[in-house]
Amino acid sequence: MDIDEIAKKIANGNRRALARAITLVESARPDHREQSALLLEAASGIGRQAIRIGLSGTPGAGKSTFIESFGMMLVKNGLKVAVIAVDPSSTRSGGSILGDKTRMERLSRETNAFIRPSPSQSYLGGVTRRSWEVVALCETAGFDIVLVETVGVGQSETLAAEMTDIFALLLAPAGGDELQGVKRGIMEIADIILVNKADGDLKSAAKRTCADYSGALRLLRKRPQDPENHPKAIAVSALFEESLDTAWNEMRSIIDWRKSEGHFELRRKRQAQFWFEEEVRSSLLKMLQTPELRSAMDNGARSVANGTDTPIAAAQKVLELLNSDKRKVRS
Amino acid sequence: MDIDEIAKKIANGNRRALARAITLVESARPDHREQSALLLEAASGIGRQAIRIGLSGTPGAGKSTFIESFGMMLVKNGLKVAVIAVDPSSTRSGGSILGDKTRMERLSRETNAFIRPSPSQSYLGGVTRRSWEVVALCETAGFDIVLVETVGVGQSETLAAEMTDIFALLLAPAGGDELQGVKRGIMEIADIILVNKADGDLKSAAKRTCADYSGALRLLRKRPQDPENHPKAIAVSALFEESLDTAWNEMRSIIDWRKSEGHFELRRKRQAQFWFEEEVRSSLLKMLQTPELRSAMDNGARSVANGTDTPIAAAQKVLELLNSDKRKVRS
Repeated sequence: MDIDEIAKKIANGNRRALARAITLVESARPDHREQSALLLEAASGIGRQAIRIGLSGTPGAGKSTFIESFGMMLVKNGLKVAVIAVDPSSTRSGGSILGDKTRMERLSRETNAFIRPSPSQSYLGGVTRRSWEVVALCETAGFDIVLVETVGVGQSETLAAEMTDIFALLLAPAGGDELQGVKRGIMEIADIILVNKADGDLKSAAKRTCADYSGALRLLRKRPQDPENHPKAIAVSALFEESLDTAWNEMRSIIDWRKSEGHFELRRKRQAQFWFEEEVRSSLLKMLQTPELRSAMDNGARSVANGTDTPIAAAQKVLELLNSDKRKVRS
Repeated sequence: MDIDEIAKKIANGNRRALARAITLVESARPDHREQSALLLEAASGIGRQAIRIGLSGTPGAGKSTFIESFGMMLVKNGLKVAVIAVDPSSTRSGGSILGDKTRMERLSRETNAFIRPSPSQSYLGGVTRRSWEVVALCETAGFDIVLVETVGVGQSETLAAEMTDIFALLLAPAGGDELQGVKRGIMEIADIILVNKADGDLKSAAKRTCADYSGALRLLRKRPQDPENHPKAIAVSALFEESLDTAWNEMRSIIDWRKSEGHFELRRKRQAQFWFEEEVRSSLLKMLQTPELRSAMDNGARSVANGTDTPIAAAQKVLELLNSDKRKVRS
């Protein structure tokens, strides 16, 4: 396989080459990992930069509709848009592409749009690096915007924030005292909050929800990477394609400010370091993924839960097993 | 060293035995880790249970005064109180005990109180398990309440929540639009918010701050472990020892509810599993702590930050070094 040739094809906008390269970086096979390393190095040499936007939403916030409308608006503005889904809880592979294409029917038919789910695995805190690599490949392929959508539970939002330049949280309008389904921890990493469904009967509820979240955001400590008066909450309607330009302008002004203040570059550097450490860390934790050690971990978890073993005693049993044979650490 | 003898002494309330046992579990020496494992097993066999309270506060919230007043109130109620400080950013050892004793002068003189800082180290996400073990020893020593105070930056609050039954966040009253120094992510793990300094000129500001946080808490999703109408925000005065009993009653009612609903037991089980996995995880990551590998990690971080290497390429260099010699994994 001629890695430089593939990298060039990707840079020239060859979709098939991009899709195959993504399949390559998503593979866990050791030889594929080595080829991926070379490919990502070649891609990095090409040196293209997109705006990477992370997007998370509460159930019922209308995330698919938003991505479709927001993506269409960007495409109409002459921008090329890639959409990647991050789901650390799932091991599904390309099989759900069809699902994503149905979900975003108009966008998937655009030649300037590219939609791809990114499968991933995690075990014992060893999170996926694959999605970060997929984002880097999309950047090389010349997309102006890479939208990283979070799917599933747990860490997906934190991970999406670790691979994007700006993180948006999509919410539905809440009525009165009604509880919002905002997962604890997500609001904390949001750079902008978008209250969707600001249309028809829900318009005034959306405005109220906006005000509530603006108030809540003011109670949090301002981060160095926040421009004056940010993070903001904005009401939008994905269905009627209203205020999506406002949202986009706000995002751009945050990005511009961060670029001029050095925060953009700093965030990318820190993210590269994060994924480097993550690669080392999860390669080490992969030593636990043999069937024998997996079952030892399960037994340990069971014995500490029912009080048979203390955590340290249970851990020592696993470590003895680890030391009993020689393993190679591989990425 | 007769481990069972030491465990018995601790259970009989021998302070010197407890202090020495804490020094033992805090030691990184392999033979000390083995003895610690045996000691914790013996301690677990004694089977005592305290109420473990985590406490974090924004700078200037008056945490030391609160712990002193709150601790004194508990002692006056006939309870035995241990105070442990968790600081993952520090490697300080017993040296700061004096500092803690000056900080909580009255409490440190009480025979039914015990104050101890817990040093800890972390590298590459390998967080401390020591403090969890110190808490377990204090429980064995017959303390009714173990207060785990978070010190320093970063993960300390999350860790304190992982070793306690209830997590309290202490805040100062805020004037009008003034920004609170609440670290992003902390409010999310709080089971109760205490607004301190509700006295004198600040009394009405404290009430307003309480209302603000009550509103913000309502915007977050209710967790299964939250009783109806919780988490709450409560105004207290540590200086004038006002409403501390209210705070304590609220904490007790949360604990009682969680005990009757099974959440208390479940949380303890999950925490035991967390610390078991953490022990395995950080033992693996300790392979990176030789001088040679530390400098390889530093070089890798530098080369990805300035773009010389991609994260995966930099990681592969570290992994090659790891494979080049045979290492034992130790707890």
